[in-house]
Amino acid sequence: MTTIHLIAVGKFRRDPYQDLFAEYEKRMSPWRINLTEIKAHDTAEEREKISKLLNPEIPLFVCDERGKQLSSSVFASQIGDYQRNSIKDLQFVIGGADGVGGDIRKKARHLIAFGKQTWPHMMVRVMLIEQIYRAKQILSGHPYHRDS
Amino acid sequence: MTTIHLIAVGKFRRDPYQDLFAEYEKRMSPWRINLTEIKAHDTAEEREKISKLLNPEIPLFVCDERGKQLSSSVFASQIGDYQRNSIKDLQFVIGGADGVGGDIRKKARHLIAFGKQTWPHMMVRVMLIEQIYRAKQILSGHPYHRDS
Repeated sequence: MTTIHLIAVGKFRRDPYQDLFAEYEKRMSPWRINLTEIKAHDTAEEREKISKLLNPEIPLFVCDERGKQLSSSVFASQIGDYQRNSIKDLQFVIGGADGVGGDIRKKARHLIAFGKQTWPHMMVRVMLIEQIYRAKQILSGHPYHRDS
Repeated sequence: MTTIHLIAVGKFRRDPYQDLFAEYEKRMSPWRINLTEIKAHDTAEEREKISKLLNPEIPLFVCDERGKQLSSSVFASQIGDYQRNSIKDLQFVIGGADGVGGDIRKKARHLIAFGKQTWPHMMVRVMLIEQIYRAKQILSGHPYHRDS
């Protein structure tokens, strides 16, 4: 079963962002989302905590302003390539306000960006989970991608 | 008082997207959001309805996949330029699945895109209102832009 390990800085509050995230999480079934939230006092601690959580054997996607902008179908085909190779676990990192730093960026197989705009952290979580859900629907030939 | 006239295809359902939109609408005060939702049977009808609603005397921003990707601060300075010229009313259009078409695109002073990804219509509404709120905070020197 595909499991998305998402490591993200900050804590969800009880608000519509969390509701939206939960909604996509539910729709994603049987794919699983394993969210680990990081709370730290400063950027250095934040990056250290992320590094410790990373599993070097699982492909890593990092959301980063300096990343590459991918169309939804190219992103889906990246995930599809892993699935064809029976790689079911994928890691995603969403850093804090200062980004993830060079060390974590170097470990990433994919650096992905969501436009040139600056977005709230919690919005980025929702944008990412929506794109992963969309990728799943594209890979299974479901019309969601065209219709939504 | 600044009024944002937003013409968007589709109707909000009672869901977290609508809650998020309402949240930003509230925070936006005293700026006002005047949302007009379009429901049509086909793309031609949709475009005709949008065209009829447009006021040629108000600057028009169109959200379009073929648009320009702007950083949040460049977008804010575009709105700021209108404000310095005492232009308080701005129009925004979010089209349907097939985009707005050439006629409406030609009327636009600004074509803006949110990344290369495809997003749900209701997500685009939230992304747009967040960027307008962010622009307002940037223009008033509020730290939201850096902190969020």
